[in-house]
Amino acid sequence: MKLITVRELYKNREAYLDKEITVGGWVRSIRDSKSFGFLVLHDGTFFETLQVVYHDTMENFAQIGKLNVGAAVIVKGTLVATPQAKQPFEIQAAEVTVEGASAPDYPLQKKRHTLEYLRTMTHLRPRTNTFQAVFRVRSLTAYAIHKFFQEQGFVYVHTPLITGSDCEGAGEMFQVTTMDLNNIPKTEDGKVDYSKDFFCKPTNLTVSGQLNGETYAQAFRNIYTFGPTFRAENSNTTRHAAEFWMIEPEMAFADLDDNMEMAEAMLKYVIRYVLENAPEEMNFFNSFVDKGLLDRLNHVLNSEFGHVTYTEAVKILEENNDKFDYKVSWGCDLQTEHERYLTEQVFKRPVFVTDYPKEIKAFYMKANEDGKTVAAMDCLVPGIGEIIGGSQREDDYDKLAARMDELGLDKEQYGFYLDLRKYGSTHHSGFGLGFERCVMYLTGMGNIRDVIPFPRTVKNCDL
Amino acid sequence: MKLITVRELYKNREAYLDKEITVGGWVRSIRDSKSFGFLVLHDGTFFETLQVVYHDTMENFAQIGKLNVGAAVIVKGTLVATPQAKQPFEIQAAEVTVEGASAPDYPLQKKRHTLEYLRTMTHLRPRTNTFQAVFRVRSLTAYAIHKFFQEQGFVYVHTPLITGSDCEGAGEMFQVTTMDLNNIPKTEDGKVDYSKDFFCKPTNLTVSGQLNGETYAQAFRNIYTFGPTFRAENSNTTRHAAEFWMIEPEMAFADLDDNMEMAEAMLKYVIRYVLENAPEEMNFFNSFVDKGLLDRLNHVLNSEFGHVTYTEAVKILEENNDKFDYKVSWGCDLQTEHERYLTEQVFKRPVFVTDYPKEIKAFYMKANEDGKTVAAMDCLVPGIGEIIGGSQREDDYDKLAARMDELGLDKEQYGFYLDLRKYGSTHHSGFGLGFERCVMYLTGMGNIRDVIPFPRTVKNCDL
Repeated sequence: MKLITVRELYKNREAYLDKEITVGGWVRSIRDSKSFGFLVLHDGTFFETLQVVYHDTMENFAQIGKLNVGAAVIVKGTLVATPQAKQPFEIQAAEVTVEGASAPDYPLQKKRHTLEYLRTMTHLRPRTNTFQAVFRVRSLTAYAIHKFFQEQGFVYVHTPLITGSDCEGAGEMFQVTTMDLNNIPKTEDGKVDYSKDFFCKPTNLTVSGQLNGETYAQAFRNIYTFGPTFRAENSNTTRHAAEFWMIEPEMAFADLDDNMEMAEAMLKYVIRYVLENAPEEMNFFNSFVDKGLLDRLNHVLNSEFGHVTYTEAVKILEENNDKFDYKVSWGCDLQTEHERYLTEQVFKRPVFVTDYPKEIKAFYMKANEDGKTVAAMDCLVPGIGEIIGGSQREDDYDKLAARMDELGLDKEQYGFYLDLRKYGSTHHSGFGLGFERCVMYLTGMGNIRDVIPFPRTVKNCDL
Repeated sequence: MKLITVRELYKNREAYLDKEITVGGWVRSIRDSKSFGFLVLHDGTFFETLQVVYHDTMENFAQIGKLNVGAAVIVKGTLVATPQAKQPFEIQAAEVTVEGASAPDYPLQKKRHTLEYLRTMTHLRPRTNTFQAVFRVRSLTAYAIHKFFQEQGFVYVHTPLITGSDCEGAGEMFQVTTMDLNNIPKTEDGKVDYSKDFFCKPTNLTVSGQLNGETYAQAFRNIYTFGPTFRAENSNTTRHAAEFWMIEPEMAFADLDDNMEMAEAMLKYVIRYVLENAPEEMNFFNSFVDKGLLDRLNHVLNSEFGHVTYTEAVKILEENNDKFDYKVSWGCDLQTEHERYLTEQVFKRPVFVTDYPKEIKAFYMKANEDGKTVAAMDCLVPGIGEIIGGSQREDDYDKLAARMDELGLDKEQYGFYLDLRKYGSTHHSGFGLGFERCVMYLTGMGNIRDVIPFPRTVKNCDL
């Protein structure tokens, strides 16, 4: 028995009108009178629901009337147009088969639940309107990113999750081990005996695939990563998760301008893809989550992104220091309040800030000729602040080695990375996009816990 | 300066013939005479190379002649057809700019290197023909899988990597912690004090996203996962890695037949996509890695997959027990030798083996009416054996709970999973495809270490 999806009915209704079809789904609401009743059915394939009309001519009329929200049913009947009604069509049911009842304590009822409440049931919340919309858009966003890069011939590289090194010594890391924590093997001098661990050395969960990605860009020219990354930071905010996904494209023979051009094209592509492929979901967000969302996204689609150097940006911000909690001066890192001021008040569109002081950026960024700044870029967008960070990479062996010495980095551990500057080095660039931050931007959702199916945060690792 | 890719030249040559273009890439080989020379250039975008002819009219003629393999150059010149030559065209260079020299100790020379040798330099091996082919096909395979499922409306779900539970108590797991291993916090009774750990409880790296995936199938109907999974097994074989990627689709309102139909369609789609989009690479594998590869894949494309129950399969195998190291009898797990015999000798095409004894399958598989077997399916393919494993899931609350009791599983830990059977349960099915095993199958590569960019195996976690 072939079940027609609700998506198919909405996309291709003419093919099914006045025909007998079978659908399967879950009851969103039910109301009945003496001789007939209405089931509102959602089958998970489409944001909209399907109304089912059933009658007391059915043997199990009484059973149906007693169904609870959440019950699974299979309905056979005729699709009929309902030009007078809110919905375009309904099913006049001939049979309603109860596939799985829903116990009386089903925690999702027809009324609206708070996001906080729904966070306590990550296995059930995808059945609600909000999370149907969020997680379909998340899926489409992921696909749009793959599609964008694949269409341009980028090679998708799976950089490793378990790693023996830490990229740029950024963030706190999770350690990975198979040793028995109740009984850690020790060497004669009382230290942890890593020769007894699975990899015979200390290993962590990756904080970035970039350095590995660069090795592939020097072979394939254009590559991207798309995989999980981890931060063991003790930050309990609406924007931090311990486990999140990152996209990190890396391009050989590309300078900072090429890098920004690619980032802008990618963001616009993804926005367009989601608007085109999830219009019902995006309208829902615009109506119930973030009123200005569609205007903002359409404005971004139609804007040329702005460009400003860090030094120029600091001048602008300094003149407005009375507006900020953290006062700005040259050399400081920009806070979200500054980033949002630049993109929302000054430029009124997305803007790239470039050429940051080298002290606040990573060792691998290309030194500018002024000796003070590096060829970095952050992309700031209205409503969020920084969404993308990238740079041209230092491709000169001596300069990179000198910078590593300055910062006290172990050049032996980074031998593979220095090799890229020794054997056919090219000017090259790349950036990182936090995937969850991108989904928050596209949906207007305010808490990262609500855009990750099973979020991991400090003290929280449920399911 | 816009660099034209070698891929673009091969795909769209008419647009560039007799025009001045600029390309960038890495030197694969070089030979010169007194007044001119040839550079063979590879730019990473296409499997084939580009020949560059340069002359002593250039200022840096001597410098070019001394370039080593691996050097990066930018070449400006005219693309001319070479109807007499092996390659279809070449560049008559006007300028060759050295972007980055290659030091004399560059470990990749023009001669063929062994895969073992190349495994010692995972950061350079993607520059060789074999790994160019492998990792482009890996990328295309990943994309084909996304494309297949997205085109059918499946929702891509990122199931968590760090988890507090273990799916089916399958393989050995890696523990994840932020505690200082030199100084593990202990409780008063001398046990590890997990309240001091990041998540306040023991956590591991996931071995499967299936159970989480099922929660989303009961909301979206059709979902798939595609992410890393981990096994801390001490197996040093050509087929085991500690970190690998898995695809796990899960479908509500789907029985075992629907499941097999989807698996067969997916495999055929991916094979077709790779053959169409990487013909040069696939020809290379067929010529240099695995002689019968293309025939085998084309045969699979054109076959209806076979179907046989485990019980029937065991009868067939028992009659041939003299051919096997491990003798077969009803109740035993099938070894690779048995699987390959079935698909290669008996069916001579891919075959689904169904309805395995419940004792050798996981707790969540749906009990058949015979009380002895479960609605499981493994897909066996020639040359590999098992490539996909799946089942219809037990959707009856009482049966599932009873089976969990039988096996001594903690029902509280699986409360979320039982909830799916309590609130709108549906018949549903899914399967798992090991991504690396799929890439090995498509390329003919024999060692899993050679299809993962940076493989992680026992005692090995380089870069």
